[in-house]
Amino acid sequence: MTLKNPLDMHLHLRDEKMLDLVAPFSAKDFKAGVIMPNLITPITDINSLKAYKQRIIKACENEDFTPLMTLFFKKYDEKFLENAKDEIFAIKLYPAGITTNSDNGISSFDIQNLKPTLNAMSELNIPLLIHGETNDFVMDREANFAKIYEKLAQNFPNLKIVMEHITTKVLCDLLKDYENLYATITLHHLMITLDDVIGGKMDPHLFCKPIAKRYEDKDALCELAFSGYEKAMFGSDSAPHPLHTKECCGCAAGVFSAPVILPVLAELFEKNSNEKNLQKFISDNACEIYDFKFEKEKIINLEKQEWQVPQKYGDIVPFMAEKSLKFKTKLI
Amino acid sequence: MTLKNPLDMHLHLRDEKMLDLVAPFSAKDFKAGVIMPNLITPITDINSLKAYKQRIIKACENEDFTPLMTLFFKKYDEKFLENAKDEIFAIKLYPAGITTNSDNGISSFDIQNLKPTLNAMSELNIPLLIHGETNDFVMDREANFAKIYEKLAQNFPNLKIVMEHITTKVLCDLLKDYENLYATITLHHLMITLDDVIGGKMDPHLFCKPIAKRYEDKDALCELAFSGYEKAMFGSDSAPHPLHTKECCGCAAGVFSAPVILPVLAELFEKNSNEKNLQKFISDNACEIYDFKFEKEKIINLEKQEWQVPQKYGDIVPFMAEKSLKFKTKLI
Repeated sequence: MTLKNPLDMHLHLRDEKMLDLVAPFSAKDFKAGVIMPNLITPITDINSLKAYKQRIIKACENEDFTPLMTLFFKKYDEKFLENAKDEIFAIKLYPAGITTNSDNGISSFDIQNLKPTLNAMSELNIPLLIHGETNDFVMDREANFAKIYEKLAQNFPNLKIVMEHITTKVLCDLLKDYENLYATITLHHLMITLDDVIGGKMDPHLFCKPIAKRYEDKDALCELAFSGYEKAMFGSDSAPHPLHTKECCGCAAGVFSAPVILPVLAELFEKNSNEKNLQKFISDNACEIYDFKFEKEKIINLEKQEWQVPQKYGDIVPFMAEKSLKFKTKLI
Repeated sequence: MTLKNPLDMHLHLRDEKMLDLVAPFSAKDFKAGVIMPNLITPITDINSLKAYKQRIIKACENEDFTPLMTLFFKKYDEKFLENAKDEIFAIKLYPAGITTNSDNGISSFDIQNLKPTLNAMSELNIPLLIHGETNDFVMDREANFAKIYEKLAQNFPNLKIVMEHITTKVLCDLLKDYENLYATITLHHLMITLDDVIGGKMDPHLFCKPIAKRYEDKDALCELAFSGYEKAMFGSDSAPHPLHTKECCGCAAGVFSAPVILPVLAELFEKNSNEKNLQKFISDNACEIYDFKFEKEKIINLEKQEWQVPQKYGDIVPFMAEKSLKFKTKLI
């Protein structure tokens, strides 16, 4: 199995020592990644963004990997966005307080209030990436955000809106109702439900936001991914947290999947779909949606070679820790 | 506020060192407790039960506390039950593998198969206590067990069936449909929903089985408890686990509430109900249902005196750890 220009359309690389530890895993297997801006101080200006980009490039040195940078959404004016346009891939919107480092997010989705920024983004063709959850009951948060997605999609028909890391059937269906709605899907949400998180023993390493939902939700996500559906893109949401913030009273949300993504996807698609649809999901759909052109191709070969995922990388427990995998990646 | 003969109708005391650590908390504040039989080797014979009872009495020495002993349900014959009757308060049924130490539980609810045992229990007036969960999706397990409760209630109309630690509105409603169905309700299920377990950060110390459900479920439980509804009894399901089995990868299910039960209930009922209904919930309803007579009354006074719940008792993190409470218990 070979994959051309794999893209991770939703990636948390953090900063400093954590960046240096985790970035190489993504850089090794992926051609590019969309880098989330929710650092402890969110990235809201171009100088910070450029400096962060340089730190990422340094952490990934010797690898053919492009960090696609994003700004943390706030009310930016048109002039700012015009100047920023060439440096950024997209703008990421977080509702306030909904996940890790999102306290400075948006607390109202009043269209009039958001209009100047969103109109400017629309005209400048800057995509809007959204962590779509309300503050409702944990199992309803994403489904209840559907009405906000609809309102945005209707009011800004030329704005590319990406529903990030979707987890519910409701959003899988919504994706088909609006031309300007797109979605990313993680690896772990193709594999787990709430039963894996709290159904037997409680597993902090599968605790993430949005939380994994019901079997019918997982099935709907798998249907999109395995069919190679053109508006669904792979985005890992790989989000490392050190062990002492996971296995504790009050554990942090996030699954660190970066080191195992392509091997696990290969195994999933071999069983449930085929190589062609994996190529669509992992790269071609995003290339089509965003009109990506890469000067140099990056080809990853997936070889059948059994290996065991380590228990930890540094002090981070990865997704599928200690599990045996069938495929290994190799750069061609 | 004073309470007469408080009863904990669902209590896990474990064994050995853990028993010695946790039993005094219940023995201090309660007149009696229904002791769950799911030790590592479940209690299925009278000698083991008598020996366990003696270990409990020793752990609670100097306190006026009666352990009401239960057997772990299996197919017992009538002769065994006739001999056991005077030593046991009830028999506790676990579906196989549904919670801590329940691997030897029941895997089929075929009525014909269970009939000899349940008919004998019915004739001998031995109550059947049930952990009612199926093996379905974690949020549906209890509601999906309703049909089994109905089948049992219909087929054994003279058997007292107690739906233990109920967590869903469905069972609150079912309670009113069958004369021979009763329920216990825990302290924590009157206070938390799934949001408290995984809605913000993940809290292993609120992870329990059945898992806390939705707001409308909590409201239905509160309605039963706060109204003093005659078929609802307090049962803490206080279930200690050492810290290293809670804050880890694969944490154990159970909330250790024993040290804080009466103070927290007093605060809840002061705010939402009254002393009379708390007396019903904590003792009178059970006395009526089981026709309990106590030779000597145990009166607990709840005095207004602020105190902070410790972070740990031994190596167990209690419910409400480090929280400030308004009431303290005092034996009169």
